[in-house]
Amino acid sequence: MAINYPNGKKFNPSKEPVKKKEKKDFSFSNRGKTLEDELNETNDYYLQLGHAVIHKKPVPVQIVKVEYPSRSAAVIREAYFRTPSTTDYNGVWNGRYIDFEAKETENKTSFPLKNIHEHQIHHMAQVVEQNGLAFMIIRFSSLQRYFLMRFESLQVFWDRMITGGRKSITLKEIEETSIEITPGAYPRIDYLSSLHKL
Amino acid sequence: MAINYPNGKKFNPSKEPVKKKEKKDFSFSNRGKTLEDELNETNDYYLQLGHAVIHKKPVPVQIVKVEYPSRSAAVIREAYFRTPSTTDYNGVWNGRYIDFEAKETENKTSFPLKNIHEHQIHHMAQVVEQNGLAFMIIRFSSLQRYFLMRFESLQVFWDRMITGGRKSITLKEIEETSIEITPGAYPRIDYLSSLHKL
Repeated sequence: MAINYPNGKKFNPSKEPVKKKEKKDFSFSNRGKTLEDELNETNDYYLQLGHAVIHKKPVPVQIVKVEYPSRSAAVIREAYFRTPSTTDYNGVWNGRYIDFEAKETENKTSFPLKNIHEHQIHHMAQVVEQNGLAFMIIRFSSLQRYFLMRFESLQVFWDRMITGGRKSITLKEIEETSIEITPGAYPRIDYLSSLHKL
Repeated sequence: MAINYPNGKKFNPSKEPVKKKEKKDFSFSNRGKTLEDELNETNDYYLQLGHAVIHKKPVPVQIVKVEYPSRSAAVIREAYFRTPSTTDYNGVWNGRYIDFEAKETENKTSFPLKNIHEHQIHHMAQVVEQNGLAFMIIRFSSLQRYFLMRFESLQVFWDRMITGGRKSITLKEIEETSIEITPGAYPRIDYLSSLHKL
């Protein structure tokens, strides 16, 4: 039996992610997209064209209780979000190991470092130690500006914070230490071209 | 209120994975461990010693319903397992991108290819195309034997199957095309040393 919800809509337990259909007019259609949507599109583009194999990792959850209804898929009935121990995205680009975290802020003048977990910093440091490429992609959503900051720069601002300095990176500092990515149509956020420049 | 279960035990909704405590006597303690346990231990070892940064990806789940009890962590109340689109493990080893799938079988004479998804084969082919290292680690659990098979060999057996040939790889074929890994104490399954040999 379908359950009627207070808003009159029926609850639809779809197994597939519900994707909003977007128009192909890129001047307008990208408004309202999350940075994750934009990066997934970009990674799909890189994959289709054979430029790189980069995927977002699944959200880590701790599964506690699973039901096995007969003749249906197993249903997870109790689970909790876990703190990620690594960054969200990784993969390979022409033999090079790529590893990054993507963050957006509504702020207009600075990027708050509370968006990043300490173990993600630790993870990126380990990646650089292994000669991998580690970086952060920052979106200033209100400004529609995107930056790629290498981990080596991020670490300087992180160290400043943990030694008692400011808890954010100013936009000016980001402009001085990062590569700005101009969003486009295909690919949406061409961060690999920006890596080339570095 | 705690609920009494038929077996007399109370259900313990722990948020942390329940890990079996293992004795440190490696001649016996590894019996009963899954291949995943063994590889996680190995990857921890590599990470601690700075040899490589390789992690297992979280299990992909499609989250449908989340509750937010006041003053507690969010609880996922309905979610489904999704088919993974990539392999389970990836990371970086001295600048090289590493990507592999781990499978165990109770069979004694062959490894059934039904254990592998077609899109995992496709993913590994894309990784090799990008000059990454892709392979499969196979454990014959009854025999306590471990093998590392490069994707390039796996693909030959996969292609044989999809063109109408046998649906498994014989142990003899695996012996001829793979590197056998002798399990040890630290690290448990030293697959990076085996990669060196290839």
